[in-house]
Amino acid sequence: KCQPSRLWSDIHSTATHGTGRRYGDQPEQTGLSRLTLTDSDAQARSWFVETTKSLGCTVTVDGIGNIFAVRPGLNNDVAPTFVGSHLDSQPLGGRFDGVLGVCAGIEMLRVLNDNWIETEGPVGVVNWTNEEGARFPVSMMGSGVWGGARGLQATYDLKEVGGGSGADGSRRTVRAELERIGYLRSVPARVEDGGVRMAGHFELHIEQGPRLLAMGKRVAAVTGVQAYKWFEVHVYGRACHSGTTPMHLRADPLAYAAETISQTNSMARMSGVLLSVGIIKAEPGSVNTVPDHVMFTMDIRAQTDEELREFEETLMTQTTGALTERNAAAKKDGAADEVSLEIKETFHSPAMKFDEVAVGLVEEAARDVLQTGDGEREVPRMISGAGHDSVNTAPHCPTAMVFVPCKDGVSHEPREWCEKADCAVGTDVVIQSVLRFDKWRHEQG
Amino acid sequence: KCQPSRLWSDIHSTATHGTGRRYGDQPEQTGLSRLTLTDSDAQARSWFVETTKSLGCTVTVDGIGNIFAVRPGLNNDVAPTFVGSHLDSQPLGGRFDGVLGVCAGIEMLRVLNDNWIETEGPVGVVNWTNEEGARFPVSMMGSGVWGGARGLQATYDLKEVGGGSGADGSRRTVRAELERIGYLRSVPARVEDGGVRMAGHFELHIEQGPRLLAMGKRVAAVTGVQAYKWFEVHVYGRACHSGTTPMHLRADPLAYAAETISQTNSMARMSGVLLSVGIIKAEPGSVNTVPDHVMFTMDIRAQTDEELREFEETLMTQTTGALTERNAAAKKDGAADEVSLEIKETFHSPAMKFDEVAVGLVEEAARDVLQTGDGEREVPRMISGAGHDSVNTAPHCPTAMVFVPCKDGVSHEPREWCEKADCAVGTDVVIQSVLRFDKWRHEQG
Ligand SMILES: NC(=O)NCCC(=O)O
Ligand SMILES: NC(=O)NCCC(=O)O
Repeated sequence: KCQPSRLWSDIHSTATHGTGRRYGDQPEQTGLSRLTLTDSDAQARSWFVETTKSLGCTVTVDGIGNIFAVRPGLNNDVAPTFVGSHLDSQPLGGRFDGVLGVCAGIEMLRVLNDNWIETEGPVGVVNWTNEEGARFPVSMMGSGVWGGARGLQATYDLKEVGGGSGADGSRRTVRAELERIGYLRSVPARVEDGGVRMAGHFELHIEQGPRLLAMGKRVAAVTGVQAYKWFEVHVYGRACHSGTTPMHLRADPLAYAAETISQTNSMARMSGVLLSVGIIKAEPGSVNTVPDHVMFTMDIRAQTDEELREFEETLMTQTTGALTERNAAAKKDGAADEVSLEIKETFHSPAMKFDEVAVGLVEEAARDVLQTGDGEREVPRMISGAGHDSVNTAPHCPTAMVFVPCKDGVSHEPREWCEKADCAVGTDVVIQSVLRFDKWRHEQG
Repeated sequence: KCQPSRLWSDIHSTATHGTGRRYGDQPEQTGLSRLTLTDSDAQARSWFVETTKSLGCTVTVDGIGNIFAVRPGLNNDVAPTFVGSHLDSQPLGGRFDGVLGVCAGIEMLRVLNDNWIETEGPVGVVNWTNEEGARFPVSMMGSGVWGGARGLQATYDLKEVGGGSGADGSRRTVRAELERIGYLRSVPARVEDGGVRMAGHFELHIEQGPRLLAMGKRVAAVTGVQAYKWFEVHVYGRACHSGTTPMHLRADPLAYAAETISQTNSMARMSGVLLSVGIIKAEPGSVNTVPDHVMFTMDIRAQTDEELREFEETLMTQTTGALTERNAAAKKDGAADEVSLEIKETFHSPAMKFDEVAVGLVEEAARDVLQTGDGEREVPRMISGAGHDSVNTAPHCPTAMVFVPCKDGVSHEPREWCEKADCAVGTDVVIQSVLRFDKWRHEQG
């Protein structure tokens, strides 16, 4: 069994690397602001490397900066079983998203060492690069390259979102930032090109939503992840003077964008899918100039690929239909310029189902842990709303996840919180799952 | 009479200081990107100072960076009569907005010198600081400080819009930028505190709208400027994960902002006022995080103070009403957090009427210039839709403006264009206006 205080101390002491927004007086009452491949991410990575080495692991960094720490087993010819998650955060993120999973893996190493446990095959912990997709706008990026869902070169060339952290505000690339923090290595990133092998992947994560709380449960076995897509929507019009141009002669891309966001939001509410606009920007960006270009992102999610596809179709039909109407009306009013639209798909993660054996092992482990805990033995299954690196390991090796509840279901927010006892229960479940899987695999031969 | 080619050459040669976006193959087919107090603005300022000095002027820079160039008259105890406008531009601005007026003033100096004309009182040219309000979001800033509409200290502390040009993206202040480009001087800025005196102010400007073209006229006498207000609207909500938070439990400030922008746009169309949103920003700005803060600007304009006040009231009632409804509905749906709203007025320029004598002189001058031009003698009067520095001189000295048409009525856009012949007609009208005013004043004693 894990030591809850040791685990808790890891979670909060590493939050000094990229301390986020404060929301209360207690030392732990800040969020985390540790965008991937920044200096604070580099500090968290150093902590990860030093800690796992001191616990007897061999550490490998691959071509996209994923860090694999491996503890030898009895038979080291077979691939290791990993506990994995991520140490990067949202710009105004919380202390548990990803971090809990990595710390659980490190706690596993300690528990194995403390108890002189020798596993059949090697076991390890992996810290995946840029799971959040907040700085470089592709989520589960490092695991995506590892699993082959994404090309390495295109990923290297990805540019950061927003103003840009380069000199004179230029937007830096993944490759440049890997190099800058010393994590650009020649080890193949993609598993099929000789990247780091993996026998199984187990991930503990906060649920990031309200369902466990609503059910009054402390832990769930995750059976898969819902489908989602990201878009970059560009609306073009004609800039003009805010004081001299009659309303009906304008080609105002922001007026159209606002209408679109407002209408697609209502559509999403009605059809039961999720739609979110996280980023919006108008150019040139001057109070008294009507913009000529607006960019905004859309994140849409649904339980099944089919539902997602249907909503996407409705979205496109509605959006382009409204545009045609708008332009026809403007032309009738005498406007010289049209508003035009370009929608680029920037990310797609189809619905993913986890391996039945791995999910079953998680369930068994959870029943076991809870039995000796508070007697509550029923373990719900659920589909994850958020994407996780496990999505990218699932096609390659048995994969499953453990969810624990977070306060008020709040995540991607500084107040994100998971109780110490829940962190410990989840960690015990993930450790038990790995040990069961290690044994199961050995028995299978 | 002015030399059209010399004037034309000034306009286009100075466009090398802050060359803007290219839209065609010809050398003149770029806009201007010369935000106030940037390096390119400093270059344009140097050109202004050197040129006016070489034409025999005494140059004074005041505490807010306004540059006054004065050519002596027969009696130098009286205040000079100025031709004035501005050399700063919008981020994606055109080559004529402001520049034409300053170049007309310089052309006036040349015409006076070429013809050995001695005016009764001194005459001069003034380049006002930050007329556009694009970088530091207050329009007619330098003239506003001069006229007393704005305090100097508060103006020094104004921060630039957007990402910020300082090291690590910090937003620089007016004062810091004046100092950096060498224009922070101790000469009083405010006329009533011993600033530069002014007997009259005449400003040539492109109309920036479509009315002159629609009337088929080449020049108008401007009788005043409409009323306008700027707001910074802040919408606050609760950040959450885009994949796990049900739509009905969100407090999404961007969904509300989009609805507001869309609805107030319709309201403006119906009530005949102008409403424009030029800047919008969502924080924290991550694809998969619902924002917790959205800021956008609103610029509203109406012909009279009364109309503006009425529209503002409707706007506030509608906006806060919609918010109350939204929050009540969300609460019923079980949402824990509300969306809240803060609207800050950042700028107000009441409707301004110019001096009847000065407007009359412009009319007379225009009739005269056109008579020898193309026989078209009828000079329309109009109220300006855009704000101009003349708004701030009008309470202190006789002030009037001359409008010439611009292509398609387009301004605050790289394609902004004014024909060479129209530039010349406008310049002749402004020169004649100054000479008539100089004489009129002398006759008044
Ligand atoms: N767990 C998590 O927040 N992942 C980010 C990827 C996504 O779901 O957008
Ligand atoms: N002339 C001009 O574009 N002025 C900017 C001030 C404004 O009207 O917003």
